[in-house]
Amino acid sequence: MNGNKAFLTNGVKAASMYLILAITSPEKDTEHSRTVFILDNQNPGFENGRVEEFVGMRGCPVGDIYLSDAIVPDIDRLGAIDQGMEIGHNAHHTARFLMGALAAGIQDAALKASINYIQERELFGGKMSHLDGIKFRISDIAMGLHATKLIIYQAAWLRDQEVDHKMETTTAKLFGSDQALKAANHAMQIFGAYGYSKEYPVEHLWRDAKALQYAEGAYEKLQLDIANSVLFESREEFML
Amino acid sequence: MNGNKAFLTNGVKAASMYLILAITSPEKDTEHSRTVFILDNQNPGFENGRVEEFVGMRGCPVGDIYLSDAIVPDIDRLGAIDQGMEIGHNAHHTARFLMGALAAGIQDAALKASINYIQERELFGGKMSHLDGIKFRISDIAMGLHATKLIIYQAAWLRDQEVDHKMETTTAKLFGSDQALKAANHAMQIFGAYGYSKEYPVEHLWRDAKALQYAEGAYEKLQLDIANSVLFESREEFML
Amino acid sequence: MNGNKAFLTNGVKAASMYLILAITSPEKDTEHSRTVFILDNQNPGFENGRVEEFVGMRGCPVGDIYLSDAIVPDIDRLGAIDQGMEIGHNAHHTARFLMGALAAGIQDAALKASINYIQERELFGGKMSHLDGIKFRISDIAMGLHATKLIIYQAAWLRDQEVDHKMETTTAKLFGSDQALKAANHAMQIFGAYGYSKEYPVEHLWRDAKALQYAEGAYEKLQLDIANSVLFESREEFML
Amino acid sequence: MNGNKAFLTNGVKAASMYLILAITSPEKDTEHSRTVFILDNQNPGFENGRVEEFVGMRGCPVGDIYLSDAIVPDIDRLGAIDQGMEIGHNAHHTARFLMGALAAGIQDAALKASINYIQERELFGGKMSHLDGIKFRISDIAMGLHATKLIIYQAAWLRDQEVDHKMETTTAKLFGSDQALKAANHAMQIFGAYGYSKEYPVEHLWRDAKALQYAEGAYEKLQLDIANSVLFESREEFML
Ligand SMILES: Cc1cc2nc3c(=O)[nH]c(=O)nc-3n(C[C@H](O)[C@H](O)[C@H](O)COP(=O)(O)OP(=O)(O)OC[C@H]3O[C@@H](n4cnc5c(N)ncnc54)[C@H](O)[C@@H]3O)c2cc1C
Ligand SMILES: Cc1cc2nc3c(=O)[nH]c(=O)nc-3n(C[C@H](O)[C@H](O)[C@H](O)COP(=O)(O)OP(=O)(O)OC[C@H]3O[C@@H](n4cnc5c(N)ncnc54)[C@H](O)[C@@H]3O)c2cc1C
Ligand SMILES: Cc1cc2nc3c(=O)[nH]c(=O)nc-3n(C[C@H](O)[C@H](O)[C@H](O)COP(=O)(O)OP(=O)(O)OC[C@H]3O[C@@H](n4cnc5c(N)ncnc54)[C@H](O)[C@@H]3O)c2cc1C
Ligand SMILES: Cc1cc2nc3c(=O)[nH]c(=O)nc-3n(C[C@H](O)[C@H](O)[C@H](O)COP(=O)(O)OP(=O)(O)OC[C@H]3O[C@@H](n4cnc5c(N)ncnc54)[C@H](O)[C@@H]3O)c2cc1C
Repeated sequence: MNGNKAFLTNGVKAASMYLILAITSPEKDTEHSRTVFILDNQNPGFENGRVEEFVGMRGCPVGDIYLSDAIVPDIDRLGAIDQGMEIGHNAHHTARFLMGALAAGIQDAALKASINYIQERELFGGKMSHLDGIKFRISDIAMGLHATKLIIYQAAWLRDQEVDHKMETTTAKLFGSDQALKAANHAMQIFGAYGYSKEYPVEHLWRDAKALQYAEGAYEKLQLDIANSVLFESREEFML
Repeated sequence: MNGNKAFLTNGVKAASMYLILAITSPEKDTEHSRTVFILDNQNPGFENGRVEEFVGMRGCPVGDIYLSDAIVPDIDRLGAIDQGMEIGHNAHHTARFLMGALAAGIQDAALKASINYIQERELFGGKMSHLDGIKFRISDIAMGLHATKLIIYQAAWLRDQEVDHKMETTTAKLFGSDQALKAANHAMQIFGAYGYSKEYPVEHLWRDAKALQYAEGAYEKLQLDIANSVLFESREEFML
Repeated sequence: MNGNKAFLTNGVKAASMYLILAITSPEKDTEHSRTVFILDNQNPGFENGRVEEFVGMRGCPVGDIYLSDAIVPDIDRLGAIDQGMEIGHNAHHTARFLMGALAAGIQDAALKASINYIQERELFGGKMSHLDGIKFRISDIAMGLHATKLIIYQAAWLRDQEVDHKMETTTAKLFGSDQALKAANHAMQIFGAYGYSKEYPVEHLWRDAKALQYAEGAYEKLQLDIANSVLFESREEFML
Repeated sequence: MNGNKAFLTNGVKAASMYLILAITSPEKDTEHSRTVFILDNQNPGFENGRVEEFVGMRGCPVGDIYLSDAIVPDIDRLGAIDQGMEIGHNAHHTARFLMGALAAGIQDAALKASINYIQERELFGGKMSHLDGIKFRISDIAMGLHATKLIIYQAAWLRDQEVDHKMETTTAKLFGSDQALKAANHAMQIFGAYGYSKEYPVEHLWRDAKALQYAEGAYEKLQLDIANSVLFESREEFML
């Protein structure tokens, strides 16, 4: 196997095992020409590239890997030959779940940090928790979190039923990413100048939240995916 | 019974039976001084007032009624004496459910009308359904509808479990009303000048949607309700 | 002249004089094939069509006219033969000015009506003007109005200088329409259920504001116009 | 002079001269009890504190200073005794100007970087500049920038006329900060994963933009300032 791949989450200097979607039948169309292989990072043809200097999600390195004449035995093949894309698509939807869950986690952290802060911090002679403007932000975070969680849970339930849940995980990611960014921004504002400081726990939620609008499909791409399913695949069940 | 009441949905020239929350023990506090009675519109003390000239929700008349020396026998009492407020609060949460369901209905109608329209209408030499800008609106409506429905269904499930679901129905109404107004606005835009015309089915969705931001509690009131529960009632289950 | 035209503002049962952009040289391209003629509504070939049942802007009738074998003498020609499109484009930019000005007028009316209302109306034992949530809405209207007016005034100044002001009037219309719809919505909310009633002055601002997102170019069309100028015409002066 | 001050922009390890607003007549009210003095960082009573670890605006250090028995001769007094607050208020409005100008600068940088990027980058077999979804973002940035600049220029003109321009600079800062954050977010999205990388020029615009929602007055504070002026000071000229 030869080639390189950019923007691998946890893929550079972090993973020891890789699933490679390799072109095995170049003469066939995209959907029927790729096969998944398991690759060890000890393989002599494997090389780590550089780690991206991203503004957020710094807990998991994202970066490049290079393969040059990496030889993988057939026993390390995952699934049948030329059926790799199916595995790939499936992995995408699993990942969108996780993105939705990350979005919920960010909102949950933003809400809890904000609640704690405003119940301590005094402003204008009373606790910040009594200011209407602050309450508007709290209810906005709480509602977004509530909706995001329900979207994920229902998608998970569909998955357990082995029912198609493509649209639901896509919504979890897309809707969730907007809510997460909004919640983190609210929390940053609630904390005042401390919200802008790396010594307090909220600015990193904001930096992380933005990642969710790229990873596992860019914003507009997912909007178009949802619209296409609604319009051209009669995804009635999406509309519950 | 004496008094009058404004802004009664279906309450003027439409209902034949009324539930009146009457002050029975003026010396006690609000929560323990009111009793519910069933009142017939044939009662000689009952009089219909005028119907409001509202911009939307014109299918159900909203208006005033007047009671002057309306005598109601004890057999028409609902529940115990001075326990009317409990019935009242309960009715509020039932009503917020219905408001959430109205919000979902408006979004559903906006989505279906839009889908039908753009699959027929030609623009720039192709169907409108192929324009990215239109697809962005479709996915936005579809996601809002999806989230609104899940919020309602989960609240209904809590109610079936006889678990407190105050926050959930409030969210259904508040979040739902924003999504409904947005969806109706998208549909109006998608229809072009026809969206602005009373001969097409979408401008009335927009007028109706706005009602949901007043009825059963004004917008900011509900925001404050949600924040107060989150902040001062440890409504952990709200956060699922 | 033969043909018909839909959606004419003030054009049906209201105007006595019409400017018709007629195809005079069908063999040439759009920009060089049309001529403007002045048509009297007493012309035997002229016929009024029906008036649209629009949800707003009901003060000026919008509707259809029909021309069948309407004969217009050459003395009623406006400008040179085949140079009508230039006049047409020019009229468009004048109209976008007016749309911007309508948008400012709606915001101004929304602001003044709201200020008057909240300085009288009592809520929770004080004037509504002392509630933070209401003040947030007031400042939001005031800032949008301020920006809209500046955009119009600067465009008018450019016009006086006989400098190209296409982008500026387009921005006046597009940005203004969003601000007007937002301001009217704020005012409707501030007025509570009275905001939803035709007896109070704000719901009609809301219905009117929406018209500005169609007339003189649909929303997305204007967005694309602005982007195309910025991207492909180096409209540096647009960026001031 | 004794005391300490937190969150000084350019105030720690950067400035050599300070303007200190010191309490000179503790028995009088806030507005008439403070005097401004010029303090040299070589003053033996002066000490630099730590620099805040802020997420953005890292080009200018923000942090604490400490004064202990710092003696300042009367010749280093600025203005009359006990008239320092007037100087202070004035400085605030100058600073809000600068915040507005920073907001315009961020938008300008976001727009130019985006234009350059999309005229080079290929996506789906064409330049990104031809995608409608990208154009919507471009026109949104361009309109916000246009409005922000006009607000600043008009405020500057008022200042030159020596007319009160408090509301105008407050609007420049508040409206401008929202537009700057939005523009930077659009640019980050337009750049895809590169927008999330520190090697490209847009993520830092986003981090910087957020600072404008704290510095020189927190978000809600400025909203309330504007509403209070509109409501209680008849600032008719604000509404132009
Ligand atoms: C980059 C940067 C540079 C700065 N430079 C300077 C400087 O040079 N000099 C200086 O003195 N200060 C400076 N500051 C501090 C700045 O002035 C404060 O951050 C600001 O005044 C807000 O005060 P706070 O941070 O203490 O927030 P708090 O007062 O704790 O308020 C927290 C949050 O509550 C919200 N809030 C405030 N009032 C209300 C209300 N009535 N209703 C609802 N919500 C409300 C706001 O969103 C605010 O962010 C700087 C800050 C930053 C981030
Ligand atoms: C109150 C009022 C007054 C009017 N007065 C006049 C008049 O005096 N003279 C006159 O000629 N016309 C008039 N019009 C008509 C107006 O010019 C049209 O409504 C407008 O040009 C949009 O055309 P359409 O309605 O046919 O919408 P369509 O062309 O059918 O488009 C439908 C919708 O698609 C969206 N859209 C358009 N292009 C794109 C794109 N590229 N990508 C994504 N989405 C897109 C828009 O949101 C649009 O609303 C008036 C309309 C109104 C409501
Ligand atoms: C279609 C429709 C049907 C209705 N049906 C019924 C019915 O069947 N029975 C019934 O009793 N009533 C009914 N109502 C009335 C409804 O309950 C009231 O409109 C609502 O409770 C708000 O009260 P208000 O209109 O008096 O607004 P106000 O109390 O005057 O408030 C005005 C506005 O102030 C804002 N506001 C409120 N509190 C705050 C705050 N703390 N901070 C900032 N802003 C605030 C809100 O946006 C509100 O819209 C109906 C209304 C409509 C439009
Ligand atoms: C934290 C992080 C982790 C990542 N992890 C992985 C990983 O593990 N594996 C992996 O393969 N990739 C990963 N990526 C890359 C990610 O999948 C891409 O960023 C994403 O698919 C978008 O592609 P792009 O960045 O090349 O943007 P481009 O394709 O260059 O697009 C740029 C922008 O254009 C917009 N756009 C896209 N399509 C349209 C359209 N039709 N109309 C209008 N606008 C459009 C979007 O907003 C997009 O952001 C990661 C990225 C980040 C930030």
